[in-house]
Amino acid sequence: MTEISYRQQRYNDKQKQILENAAKLFAQKGFGQVSLEEIASKLQLSKASLYHYIKSKDDILFQLHMEAMTQAVDALEKVLASGDSALEKLKKAIRNLVVIATRDEVLASYRMETRFLPKKMRPQVMEKRDQILDCVQRLIKEGMEAGLIHCKDWRISAFAALGTMNWIPMWYSPSGQLSVDEIAGVMEEFIFRGFGITADAMPA
Amino acid sequence: MTEISYRQQRYNDKQKQILENAAKLFAQKGFGQVSLEEIASKLQLSKASLYHYIKSKDDILFQLHMEAMTQAVDALEKVLASGDSALEKLKKAIRNLVVIATRDEVLASYRMETRFLPKKMRPQVMEKRDQILDCVQRLIKEGMEAGLIHCKDWRISAFAALGTMNWIPMWYSPSGQLSVDEIAGVMEEFIFRGFGITADAMPA
Repeated sequence: MTEISYRQQRYNDKQKQILENAAKLFAQKGFGQVSLEEIASKLQLSKASLYHYIKSKDDILFQLHMEAMTQAVDALEKVLASGDSALEKLKKAIRNLVVIATRDEVLASYRMETRFLPKKMRPQVMEKRDQILDCVQRLIKEGMEAGLIHCKDWRISAFAALGTMNWIPMWYSPSGQLSVDEIAGVMEEFIFRGFGITADAMPA
Repeated sequence: MTEISYRQQRYNDKQKQILENAAKLFAQKGFGQVSLEEIASKLQLSKASLYHYIKSKDDILFQLHMEAMTQAVDALEKVLASGDSALEKLKKAIRNLVVIATRDEVLASYRMETRFLPKKMRPQVMEKRDQILDCVQRLIKEGMEAGLIHCKDWRISAFAALGTMNWIPMWYSPSGQLSVDEIAGVMEEFIFRGFGITADAMPA
């Protein structure tokens, strides 16, 4: 190993360490509440040394986000290239994506509310979000009490159902092929089935 | 009607008009790309007059977000209070949430990437995101070709499946009751069922 590649290795290791520590802090406190000073001090670096490895707080977030997505793509490509059956592949893909979704670097970059709005506006937003969740949970409990919904864990399944819909703004385009009504029909099929509701019990 | 309430009504109408127009602009161009000047000019108002109705761009976003969530809660409460069967309620709830998710004010406030990162970083993020979607779609196509996945629209169902997992960082807490592995198990059940995969075809 030449001296230059050794130096490069040390640089990469340090950068990785900085990103990991920043991810932990962001995931714990929220992106907006962590300063570069705090990241530097956690690693016993001066802020000037920190700038040797990263350009800005946005740069850290960008790198964390890219890293998580790269892990997802790599895991999925590996699953796709395996000799497993189609459903074994799907099962492994779900598991990989859930594991990545719960890592610090993803919690750090996805927790929108921390960037989304000034701090003083957040309690009202959280309260509304809780109300929506409560309504959805009540709907599901009614279905369970009627003996029509069966699932391993109804709370997590409620989040899964909400996730299908809360994700819509990320891909929906008003100029897309399907109408909102048609999209609702597909979501309905997916969520009803997800809750284990049998075809004959589905309302017309 | 007293003069004051008439004035209040006019004020409210104007504010609503401002919010609606801002939502349209945000949804089209992204929050970061729209200035208060542009909102004012679209409504043929001076920027000073605009400040009479709204405090800041963040304030507009906050109000749009709260409005969409309030609509969701109101719709869900109405469904819950109805005399419908549990599954009819669930069906109506899904439809209401999909309709709200595709409204301008939600597209405006949820499209994270517009706020998430400086503009020059976005193409790389979008490229990665497309790669993830492509992998997931290939997995689903394999299941369809094997005759194991059946759904109304596989593209929208792929988004539904991705949504269940991409939403995890919004509710997951490392101190929660379930392990990541258990969460993956519930997601797997939900998504497999969502795709119409029968219990006997599910891998062990």
